[in-house]
Amino acid sequence: MTVKQLSLPELAAACVELGVGGVGLWREPVRAYGVEAAAKLVRDAGLNVTTLCRGGFLTAIDAGERAAALEDNRRAIDEAVTLGTNVLVLVSGGLPVGSHDLKGARERIAEGLAELAPYAGERGVRLAIEPLHPMFASDRCVVSTLDQALDIAERFPADQVGVCVDTYHVWWDDRAPAGIVRAAEGGRLHTFQLADWITPLPEGVLNGRGQLGDGSIDMREWRERVEAVGYTGPIEVEIFNDELWAGDGRALLAKTAERFTEQVW
Amino acid sequence: MTVKQLSLPELAAACVELGVGGVGLWREPVRAYGVEAAAKLVRDAGLNVTTLCRGGFLTAIDAGERAAALEDNRRAIDEAVTLGTNVLVLVSGGLPVGSHDLKGARERIAEGLAELAPYAGERGVRLAIEPLHPMFASDRCVVSTLDQALDIAERFPADQVGVCVDTYHVWWDDRAPAGIVRAAEGGRLHTFQLADWITPLPEGVLNGRGQLGDGSIDMREWRERVEAVGYTGPIEVEIFNDELWAGDGRALLAKTAERFTEQVW
Repeated sequence: MTVKQLSLPELAAACVELGVGGVGLWREPVRAYGVEAAAKLVRDAGLNVTTLCRGGFLTAIDAGERAAALEDNRRAIDEAVTLGTNVLVLVSGGLPVGSHDLKGARERIAEGLAELAPYAGERGVRLAIEPLHPMFASDRCVVSTLDQALDIAERFPADQVGVCVDTYHVWWDDRAPAGIVRAAEGGRLHTFQLADWITPLPEGVLNGRGQLGDGSIDMREWRERVEAVGYTGPIEVEIFNDELWAGDGRALLAKTAERFTEQVW
Repeated sequence: MTVKQLSLPELAAACVELGVGGVGLWREPVRAYGVEAAAKLVRDAGLNVTTLCRGGFLTAIDAGERAAALEDNRRAIDEAVTLGTNVLVLVSGGLPVGSHDLKGARERIAEGLAELAPYAGERGVRLAIEPLHPMFASDRCVVSTLDQALDIAERFPADQVGVCVDTYHVWWDDRAPAGIVRAAEGGRLHTFQLADWITPLPEGVLNGRGQLGDGSIDMREWRERVEAVGYTGPIEVEIFNDELWAGDGRALLAKTAERFTEQVW
């Protein structure tokens, strides 16, 4: 998604050229290209699919909507299997229209996972609950902190449900470092993502993430935190930024790889 | 600030007309009008000044900037005395340019308070640290949660430093209700403010707060929470909203009073 201006073949070629060995994929472009075809494309390019993004949206109250969400999540799990990744990232969903009940919404996420977790486990896919920044609590994800994500994940076996830690969402939280320890001790740190925090935020606040090194987050410190607890999984860069997307995708990927080396290691 | 399109005399008259007995004031309009004159105006109108907003901005590293900030806070404390309010709300400040060190910035706030708290205490003014929503962590306030605010406040006597709880900033935080109990038990719940959470957030995210009842927050539930811990202080409405500010100020104050009755009680 960092270079969403690139088609999947362009992305695969650019990764190979730059020596980027793994790629996190999003469902929309994968489905548009064809899941089987996308799987073959990245496999032929020798790329490891680190994660698939995203399942989730489990907060609906309406029975029909809930059933549709569960069905869509099962499809996402199947797609992960096809793509050869063992992690499906979950964006849990916001408050239903007119609802004020964050606690109830968080509970419905757990109820949905009770149905999905075994399905995922049987297929070797781990679900990774991603806490999103609290500014998304009403409209995108009622799980706002790593502790909240772990409170839900820990109701399930660790090889079925864990968490996704993204610096952009948790950097402000003085409890997140302890949450990383807690996640790792439980075997639930399923993926780790990077984006920098920059201001002013754009209207709607979704596509204002910063290139590594452009903002307020010490990337190296967070990488060292996950390293200190024994994390050896992928480190993904996930930047949503309208301005960056308006430029050349290959140059952006090269720049991001350069910043990764410079800011993270 | 909810009706910032009104001049101070218009505000005082509108409050009297609507039977609103107390008003929280901001420093800029008060200083523009003259602090003594503003004090006389509200006194003559029979209004109670609930709080003065805002001191703070204590995160600078530069010695000259720090000295200026302390001096400005002493002035704010003096202004609170003149206005007859015993609470000065603090917006603590963001990260200095180029800094990544949230922890250090939070520590500098405590260092600043060590100088200001006795000065405030001698004058009967309580400093209220306001945790701001985490989306303001980099540019406005590195204190993002009620627990963080209390961690700092509790280093000082309760009659010198406490907290300001604003629903807009803490509504997403499942730990905030326990924080309210903690604040009240320590005698540190110095003021309580209301605004609703609405989306999409505008560019810059500052002036997109919602009228009571228009958004995701259950106002009654939060009022009951502070009531349950024995809070009997003022309940302030503080809505920053460009659209509401563009309309008639008296009508907005009347609407806000109506919503207050309907949504909070």
